[in-house]
Amino acid sequence: MMKIKSFASIIFLLISILFLSATLSLCHHDHDHNLRQCRERCEEKQQYQQRRCLRDCQEKYGGTGWESTEEEKERSHEYNSRWEEEQQQQQNNPYFFGEESFKEWFRTQDGYFSVAQKFSEKSELLRGFDNYRLSFFEANPRTFVVPSHIDAEYIFFVVKGRGTISLVSQETRETYNLERGDVIRVPAGTILNVINKDSKEKLQFAELAQSISIPGRIRDYIGMGGQNPESFFNSFRGEVLEAAFNTPRGQIQRLFGQQKKGMMFQASEEQIRSISKQASESHQKRKGRSSGPFNLLKKSPLHSNRYGKLFQIDGNDYSQLQDLDMSVTFTNITKGGMMAPFYNSKSTRFVMIVKGQGYFEMACVHYQRISAQLRPRTAFIIPAGHPTTIVASKNENLQMVVFGINVRDNQKNFLAGRENVMNQMSKEAKELGFNVQAKEVEEIFNQKESFFLPGPQQQQQKQQREEGEAHHVLLSSINDFAGF
Amino acid sequence: MMKIKSFASIIFLLISILFLSATLSLCHHDHDHNLRQCRERCEEKQQYQQRRCLRDCQEKYGGTGWESTEEEKERSHEYNSRWEEEQQQQQNNPYFFGEESFKEWFRTQDGYFSVAQKFSEKSELLRGFDNYRLSFFEANPRTFVVPSHIDAEYIFFVVKGRGTISLVSQETRETYNLERGDVIRVPAGTILNVINKDSKEKLQFAELAQSISIPGRIRDYIGMGGQNPESFFNSFRGEVLEAAFNTPRGQIQRLFGQQKKGMMFQASEEQIRSISKQASESHQKRKGRSSGPFNLLKKSPLHSNRYGKLFQIDGNDYSQLQDLDMSVTFTNITKGGMMAPFYNSKSTRFVMIVKGQGYFEMACVHYQRISAQLRPRTAFIIPAGHPTTIVASKNENLQMVVFGINVRDNQKNFLAGRENVMNQMSKEAKELGFNVQAKEVEEIFNQKESFFLPGPQQQQQKQQREEGEAHHVLLSSINDFAGF
Amino acid sequence: MMKIKSFASIIFLLISILFLSATLSLCHHDHDHNLRQCRERCEEKQQYQQRRCLRDCQEKYGGTGWESTEEEKERSHEYNSRWEEEQQQQQNNPYFFGEESFKEWFRTQDGYFSVAQKFSEKSELLRGFDNYRLSFFEANPRTFVVPSHIDAEYIFFVVKGRGTISLVSQETRETYNLERGDVIRVPAGTILNVINKDSKEKLQFAELAQSISIPGRIRDYIGMGGQNPESFFNSFRGEVLEAAFNTPRGQIQRLFGQQKKGMMFQASEEQIRSISKQASESHQKRKGRSSGPFNLLKKSPLHSNRYGKLFQIDGNDYSQLQDLDMSVTFTNITKGGMMAPFYNSKSTRFVMIVKGQGYFEMACVHYQRISAQLRPRTAFIIPAGHPTTIVASKNENLQMVVFGINVRDNQKNFLAGRENVMNQMSKEAKELGFNVQAKEVEEIFNQKESFFLPGPQQQQQKQQREEGEAHHVLLSSINDFAGF
Repeated sequence: MMKIKSFASIIFLLISILFLSATLSLCHHDHDHNLRQCRERCEEKQQYQQRRCLRDCQEKYGGTGWESTEEEKERSHEYNSRWEEEQQQQQNNPYFFGEESFKEWFRTQDGYFSVAQKFSEKSELLRGFDNYRLSFFEANPRTFVVPSHIDAEYIFFVVKGRGTISLVSQETRETYNLERGDVIRVPAGTILNVINKDSKEKLQFAELAQSISIPGRIRDYIGMGGQNPESFFNSFRGEVLEAAFNTPRGQIQRLFGQQKKGMMFQASEEQIRSISKQASESHQKRKGRSSGPFNLLKKSPLHSNRYGKLFQIDGNDYSQLQDLDMSVTFTNITKGGMMAPFYNSKSTRFVMIVKGQGYFEMACVHYQRISAQLRPRTAFIIPAGHPTTIVASKNENLQMVVFGINVRDNQKNFLAGRENVMNQMSKEAKELGFNVQAKEVEEIFNQKESFFLPGPQQQQQKQQREEGEAHHVLLSSINDFAGF
Repeated sequence: MMKIKSFASIIFLLISILFLSATLSLCHHDHDHNLRQCRERCEEKQQYQQRRCLRDCQEKYGGTGWESTEEEKERSHEYNSRWEEEQQQQQNNPYFFGEESFKEWFRTQDGYFSVAQKFSEKSELLRGFDNYRLSFFEANPRTFVVPSHIDAEYIFFVVKGRGTISLVSQETRETYNLERGDVIRVPAGTILNVINKDSKEKLQFAELAQSISIPGRIRDYIGMGGQNPESFFNSFRGEVLEAAFNTPRGQIQRLFGQQKKGMMFQASEEQIRSISKQASESHQKRKGRSSGPFNLLKKSPLHSNRYGKLFQIDGNDYSQLQDLDMSVTFTNITKGGMMAPFYNSKSTRFVMIVKGQGYFEMACVHYQRISAQLRPRTAFIIPAGHPTTIVASKNENLQMVVFGINVRDNQKNFLAGRENVMNQMSKEAKELGFNVQAKEVEEIFNQKESFFLPGPQQQQQKQQREEGEAHHVLLSSINDFAGF
Repeated sequence: MMKIKSFASIIFLLISILFLSATLSLCHHDHDHNLRQCRERCEEKQQYQQRRCLRDCQEKYGGTGWESTEEEKERSHEYNSRWEEEQQQQQNNPYFFGEESFKEWFRTQDGYFSVAQKFSEKSELLRGFDNYRLSFFEANPRTFVVPSHIDAEYIFFVVKGRGTISLVSQETRETYNLERGDVIRVPAGTILNVINKDSKEKLQFAELAQSISIPGRIRDYIGMGGQNPESFFNSFRGEVLEAAFNTPRGQIQRLFGQQKKGMMFQASEEQIRSISKQASESHQKRKGRSSGPFNLLKKSPLHSNRYGKLFQIDGNDYSQLQDLDMSVTFTNITKGGMMAPFYNSKSTRFVMIVKGQGYFEMACVHYQRISAQLRPRTAFIIPAGHPTTIVASKNENLQMVVFGINVRDNQKNFLAGRENVMNQMSKEAKELGFNVQAKEVEEIFNQKESFFLPGPQQQQQKQQREEGEAHHVLLSSINDFAGF
């Protein structure tokens, strides 16, 4: 009986933890117990009073509101340090995926494939996105990746390097060269064969998968291989394989027993040359709709100024994105710059950081501020409608690959800068909505720059400098992707 | 240890309640313990024997079956009273949303916005509809609603009044006048600006939202405003706003600090005139597909007789409904009338009561009868396939706005009245299916009236009166919507 | 207090069982405790090491790996016996639906309708397929089934017999004759009337439903009938029915009280003749898109050799499958034959066994082998991407009806036989992937037969026989469907 009791206690604790964590993990990152208590008292109020109430709690116990202005100013040049204490809170931020959220599905001395956790594991709130999974891939020079097929649609963005990719099905094999900026769709179930054909540079992909089999699950299946990686053929019983291959067991065992090098390993120069040679030949033979890559960076940028550049494609540019209703964006925010606050009207965005440092801020349920420090190999989600801004560090450009879903009829609305949605509001709406003269609104919302702006640190310096002075902030070349 | 035990007991009780309520809440409204026990004994039987068994339980313990005929007749003129005891059971009816199921997201002295609870909160059974939310909106004369955008597609039906609506995005502002009967789609993420331009009458909407961001969640985001309603700009840190607006902190704080009037408030006559003037000007400028309103009541009714009228539009009438695969229906059942029992072959219907009194009955799982008394600001769901009837009270017309989803190829099949699906059955099917002569079936199914019929109370009176006598049941004008 | 404690203990046990069963049921069929422990130790490893680790566990404790070759050979002629011990494990195999997974929704002395359990009840893993339900239907000669409508789209495949089907809605009645091999779609909400018009043979359907109302739920609604089957009209209150039918209560009660024969019963020869006569007349009157049946077996087979035949249609052949994005396949594997290992690139398949014996093997998560013995009235799921093979017993042909979903752009890739996807791989990929000479790979993968191959038992005999010898394995006629 005593045993049952203590077993019971353990179960209680487990259940309690489950309940509590479910309650806490949605869009909050509670600073401490007082803040939590304060917020709980707000829950009974009407929505808009609730916001005020929650805001008051934040100011009183959260320590990052308007009240702390002076202190903030001091800290503004060292935002990196202020983030440290928030690091542990990022785990409770369901929209941010830090490095610890990515799990290595494989790693050898020649590369890795690292997949973000399932969204609903992060937070029940994100269950609706469970069909999507983010991943980073990297292969050393002259590396061969053992072919496999995946039960998901895949979009690759080539962050860096020069590779060759073969898409194989029973009826066709298409081989393409890949270079920085290429976007390619790998249809579900296609046997995928990737090599890094360069002899010096790493090959890096940022990837989005959309599961099509068991919803929310993504698996790869390796037919080649043997002991390491293990072939799925080993899942069948010996007598079944004997029959399938009409071959004695010993010979089959020999075939599936030789490969012991792991998922990625160096290939000879000759093998690399031979495979990459097929890419150009393959180009001639293709017919019907092209399934080859599309280079995003060769398109002219959608937005571009000294503070940043944004390139974007969707199904109108690259037909392979049409049925997935997706877009792919590459954004480079110049060091010290920021993207003007914005929201997407319909599209949800998966943002993967590939270079640099910075942070994002997002207005969430009850206007809780969601924010996190950004580093290469981290990612975050911007759900449709959520006002968001992204800021680069003052030392390094911030580069991101953004996968958009539900992009049909999406409208990106900017909330600051010269071109912003507030300018479309009528004079009366401005006056009534803000309870001030329209002029006062326009003064603030009508700025010189659009889309990309000088960021928090830069702003101060800029205000001190004379206008017209030669600017030191040079647009860093797209070409300078350093490794993650 | 004792504390853990008592804490344990509480957890037990909570869990037990959760389990039990989940079990009980699906489509049952159990009258008492005996009835429940009786039903439990049926669970082990095959489906059709189960139905018979459950029916027997209902008759024995439920008190509303055929057996109670005499008693029922007596009560038939006072159905209001009989409903009283069922009031508390309505909470266990997962298809009905009483006034307590609507939560006010905001209310000021000048109006309110009231949203039905999430469907899965009502019942796990309805989780599949979680992307939809129903709401009622009302604004006093000359009232301005602070502009906001919502992460959901919205369909508004104008129940009453005269308003002006502006749909604003970064690239366009469209302003339209609204009047009773207008249907308008507000695309997700559009900044919405509504005023009641009338100086005397309230403006009322019945609304359906379809969430597009976090599935099942709907939020509005207010960029204007300041302290009340609070602007989402306050979610960003001070230094970020300074940079975004290139403006000193003090000035920004001033802008976002003036508005303290709440979400809705009176505007001056001049402001109202100026905004509504833009509506007519806007009409000239529009190009491409129209995103303006469509007046449902100006279309000729689909069904109409002295007992009721039904107006309906879908994507073929109003292109804005096409991609949503939705229809909007306005139904007016004359006092004392009823809609003939029917079911929709594919479409599920969300019914919102906007005027009058009455009740609905629906055949549900195991043929449990689902029913509830209807009042303004209540709503119910009719899932596809479910046979249903709706009855108006004898004192007042019953008016409903019905949003239909999955309407493509939907067929509404009536189960009584002159035009009904039974008439399409072959003679042999009738004889075999009912085990009587086909004539006997036809006698009952072939009636004079179609679609709308005299209701329960009226029927009796009518049988007593001579045919041809002038009828006292006048079709109440569509124009007499009184306030909720 | 003591009572609360023991109640508590029961709740604990229930919860523990829930948790444990959820954990265990996913894709495992653990042989014993040692195997489970061994596997648990693998959980902490990286994915590919995990696979090796899990494989080792299987070999050491599972008893069906390569090591047991000699023993296996002995057993190869009696695979039936080896399955016995795995029978109890099939319940933990979430992809297989044995006879116990089908529940009879109704059965009379003249037939039955048997529906597979909801997928998420079988395993949480399958929740994404909850909108689909599999069912078997059988009616004796000259049997009438009481008409009903269902809140789901239905696809029927006629396994055996000759019937007549009427599809009734308010606006139309279409009547068709059905024969073996016919595929017909029954749109949701259509009132369905089926008879077996043959005087000797049973009528059998294999069916797939896609729910359209409450997601994951399928219900039928019987308007005719009375006491048994009970009519849904009995769900409405007496006074409502009196009004709806404008008929005194007694007469209504009489109509809905005569039918006491159950859901299926014998009809007279004259009634059968009269209904089936309408089928031919109906053919003349149809206009617009055909909603009649399409005979799958009259199309030429997609694959065919002495070891098997496969017939398949999709929306291109039968327009009624277009919007459902489905295919229907009939597969006959000759006794002693097997289908070459394969996977579908995008489509998930629901396989229903209608005749014969055999087994399937499938490579699942972590390359666990999923397998089960197949018998008539069992079913299994092959999710997209999963390598699978199906083997017929040596005594009987194995016949299956396969419903495919997500079939657009699906590619079936074979993994053995003359036409297989490995042949499309480049020489270099083969050499690197297997770490052997390309020749050695090609020797094994390039075989004489395609798609259908001699199975495990047959293979051995064949190797002993001379090529060119007359084969005793005759292609069993498609016509010899025996009853389930």
